[in-house]
Amino acid sequence: MKDYSELKAMNKTVDMTRGRPAKEQLEIAMPMLEAAGKLDYRCGAQDARNYGDLKGVPAARRLFADIFGGDEKNVVALDGSSLSIMYELICCAMHFGIMGSKAWRDREVKFLCPAPGYDRHFAICEAFGIKMIPIKMLECGPDMDEIERLVSADESVKGVWCVPKYSNPTGVVFSDEVVERFAALTPKAEDFRIFWDNAYIVHALYDEDIPLKNLYNLLEERGKQDMIYEIASTSKITFAGSGVAALRMSEGNIEDFLRHLKVRLINPNKVNQVMHANFLKDAAGVREIMKKHAAILRPKFELVNEMLQDAFKGEERVSFSKPKGGYFVSFNVQGKAKEVVQLASRAGVHFTAAGSTYPYFFDPNDANIRIAPSVPDMDELEFAMQTLIASVRMALK
Amino acid sequence: MKDYSELKAMNKTVDMTRGRPAKEQLEIAMPMLEAAGKLDYRCGAQDARNYGDLKGVPAARRLFADIFGGDEKNVVALDGSSLSIMYELICCAMHFGIMGSKAWRDREVKFLCPAPGYDRHFAICEAFGIKMIPIKMLECGPDMDEIERLVSADESVKGVWCVPKYSNPTGVVFSDEVVERFAALTPKAEDFRIFWDNAYIVHALYDEDIPLKNLYNLLEERGKQDMIYEIASTSKITFAGSGVAALRMSEGNIEDFLRHLKVRLINPNKVNQVMHANFLKDAAGVREIMKKHAAILRPKFELVNEMLQDAFKGEERVSFSKPKGGYFVSFNVQGKAKEVVQLASRAGVHFTAAGSTYPYFFDPNDANIRIAPSVPDMDELEFAMQTLIASVRMALK
Repeated sequence: MKDYSELKAMNKTVDMTRGRPAKEQLEIAMPMLEAAGKLDYRCGAQDARNYGDLKGVPAARRLFADIFGGDEKNVVALDGSSLSIMYELICCAMHFGIMGSKAWRDREVKFLCPAPGYDRHFAICEAFGIKMIPIKMLECGPDMDEIERLVSADESVKGVWCVPKYSNPTGVVFSDEVVERFAALTPKAEDFRIFWDNAYIVHALYDEDIPLKNLYNLLEERGKQDMIYEIASTSKITFAGSGVAALRMSEGNIEDFLRHLKVRLINPNKVNQVMHANFLKDAAGVREIMKKHAAILRPKFELVNEMLQDAFKGEERVSFSKPKGGYFVSFNVQGKAKEVVQLASRAGVHFTAAGSTYPYFFDPNDANIRIAPSVPDMDELEFAMQTLIASVRMALK
Repeated sequence: MKDYSELKAMNKTVDMTRGRPAKEQLEIAMPMLEAAGKLDYRCGAQDARNYGDLKGVPAARRLFADIFGGDEKNVVALDGSSLSIMYELICCAMHFGIMGSKAWRDREVKFLCPAPGYDRHFAICEAFGIKMIPIKMLECGPDMDEIERLVSADESVKGVWCVPKYSNPTGVVFSDEVVERFAALTPKAEDFRIFWDNAYIVHALYDEDIPLKNLYNLLEERGKQDMIYEIASTSKITFAGSGVAALRMSEGNIEDFLRHLKVRLINPNKVNQVMHANFLKDAAGVREIMKKHAAILRPKFELVNEMLQDAFKGEERVSFSKPKGGYFVSFNVQGKAKEVVQLASRAGVHFTAAGSTYPYFFDPNDANIRIAPSVPDMDELEFAMQTLIASVRMALK
C-alpha cells in the first residue's frame, strides 16, 4: 500500500463531497426520455401540458402514495427538489404559522437535529435563525429520551429533522421502537412537526431491504397525522434535481399548505410528472429500477468497507458504518476529522468539510467524515480510500 | 343574433377565466419531447442529469439572454413558473432584505400596481401584507407622473409591477417615453425594484411586432441596473407551467439572490432546460415557434374584435382593447362589470371575477372584464362572445 506522499505525488483528483449518482446510474432513466414523445399527456379532463392541478397529476400522486404506503389524497407531487419542499414548509410557517398557529418569525423557534445529519437541513434552520439543538444519533435512531423530554417540555421546539431510513450520513434505519416513540410524542407546541425526510425510502443496496415502520400510518391511527410531513423524491431514482418530489401529509396540512402554495405556483412541471409516472409505474416498478442502481453502487460500498476493515482492524480511535442502503458511509476518527479532511484534500481527495454533518458545523468530537462513494469509478475510489486511510494514519501518528 | 335567454337555453359552457394556451398550441412543442431521448445531456464538465448548476444550464441561460437582449452572465434559468420567481424575490426581501437592506417584514411596504393588471401579482402582495397602491394604466403605459412622485417621495415604496409588453390585460406596450421615465426613476428606497414581468416578450399576434425599449440596458447605461428584475418564461411558448422561467438581473442582485436560493434548491430541472434550449435554440428560433402560436390565436382575437365592434358601435359606455399581442382583450363597461360577469356565468360563459384585475379586487368604476379568447375553439368563442354581448346589453338596459 502506498503511503501519503506517494499518493499525493500521483496528482489525482477525486470528488467525494456530495451524494451524487454516477454516470452509469443516470443512463438507467434514459428510456423515460426516449418515451417522452409518445405519451398521452391528456390525463382525463386536464391536459398535463397546460395550466392547472397545483397538487400535481394524479398518476404521479398515486405513484408516490404507493411508495409511501399511503393514500393518494394525502400526497402532493411537485417539482424535482425535496429540499425546496422542506424550505417552503418552514418558510410558510415563518410567515403564516401552520394551520392557524402564530407565525414563527420574530419568536424563538428551535429544531431538534439528530447529528451527524444532513447539512442542508441545518442550512435551512440557519437561514431562518431557527435555533438548532443537536440530538445524539444512536444505532437505532436518535436519542428518543432526549427528544421526548424536549418536545414535551418546550413550546418553542417546533420541529425535528429525520432521515429515518439509510440515514444521511450514518446509514441507520430507525428501529420499530424509535418510530413508535415518535408516534407517541406529545409535543407542547400545537404546530410541532416531524420532518420525515424519507430520501432513501427505496434505496436499498441489497435484495434484503431493512423495513421501516410507517410513521404516518401510526400517527393516523392515533388521530395525530397533522404532526408529520413526509418527503421523498426521484432524485436518486431518475435524474438528480430534475425529477419529481412529493409530500405526504394530512388533509388539514394539505389545505393549509396549498392556500399558500397557490400564490407562488400555478402548477409543478406536470409533463415531467407524466413521464415519471409512465416510466416508474408504481412502487414495484421503482424497486426494479433501484435494483439496477444497487448493482452499480454495491461494489463501491463493499470496496470502501473492505479497505476500512483491513486498514483499521483493532484501531479503537476509528469507527465506521456498514450501511445496507443510502448514499453514505459515516467514518469517525476521534479528534482528527478536520485534519484528515485537510490532508486528503491536499492529496487531491475532497470530502464534505469536517463538521458539516453537525448543526453550526460543530462536531463536538471533531470525529465525523462523510464518505460518498457513488461518483468515482472503482479505480478512483480505491485511490480515494487509500488516500483517506493514509491521511488518517498520518493524523493518528 | 340570439338574445340572452336563447343563449342561456343552449346550456353550453365556455371557460374564459385564464390565459391558457389552446390544445393545438400545445401540439407545437411535441417535437421537443420526441427529441428528448436523443439529446446529449453532458453539457461539458457538468452532466445536466446530475446535481449542480444552481443558475441553470448555460444553454438555457444563453437562450434567455438572447430573448431578453442581454448578457448570459445576468441570467438565471429556473423551473417552469415565473410566478414562483417573483414570489421568491419578494419572499427573500421580506426575510432578508435585498443586497444588505433591512428585511421588509414587520415594516410598512408599498407596491405600485398599474391597474387593470395581473391578478397573481396582486395576490403575492396580499399574501405578504404589502400595501398596494393602484396606478392608472393609460394608453402608453402606467401614469408615470404618479409613479415618479410616489417612488421619489416615499421610502416604503419598494416595488412596482409591470407587464411592459402586450400587458395583462390591456394589451398595452409601454411607449419609449414611459420606459425612459422608468429608467430615470430616482427612488427614495435603496431597495426599490421594478418587477419587469416580460411575460409576453415574444408573444406578437402579427408579423409586425411592436418594439419595447430594453429597460435593463437603459438602466445599465446609467449604472442603475440593480433597480430591475426582468422575468420571462416559456409557459406560452412550449408547455404552460412545465417549461423554463428565467430572471435577468445585475450581478449584485444575482449574488444576493443565489445566496438565499442555494439554501432552497440544489438545481432547477436541467434536463428540461436542455430539452428547451435544443428545441428553441435562440431568439430567432423562438420567433419561428411564436408564429405558429399566432396563427392559431390571431383568428380568435379578430373574431372577438369584430363582434365587439359590430355590437357596440357608438355605445359610449363600452370600450375595449385591440391588442397586437399577448393573451387578453380588456373590455370595459362602466359600472356594470360585476353584473355582466354574473349574467354571462349564468348563461354558461365564465370570465375571471370582475375586479380581479385590480388590487384588493376593487375596480373603482366596476368596469373591467378580462377576455381570454385562447382556449375556446371558434364556435365556442362565438357563443361566448354572443353571450357576453347579450349580457352587456341586458345590463345596460
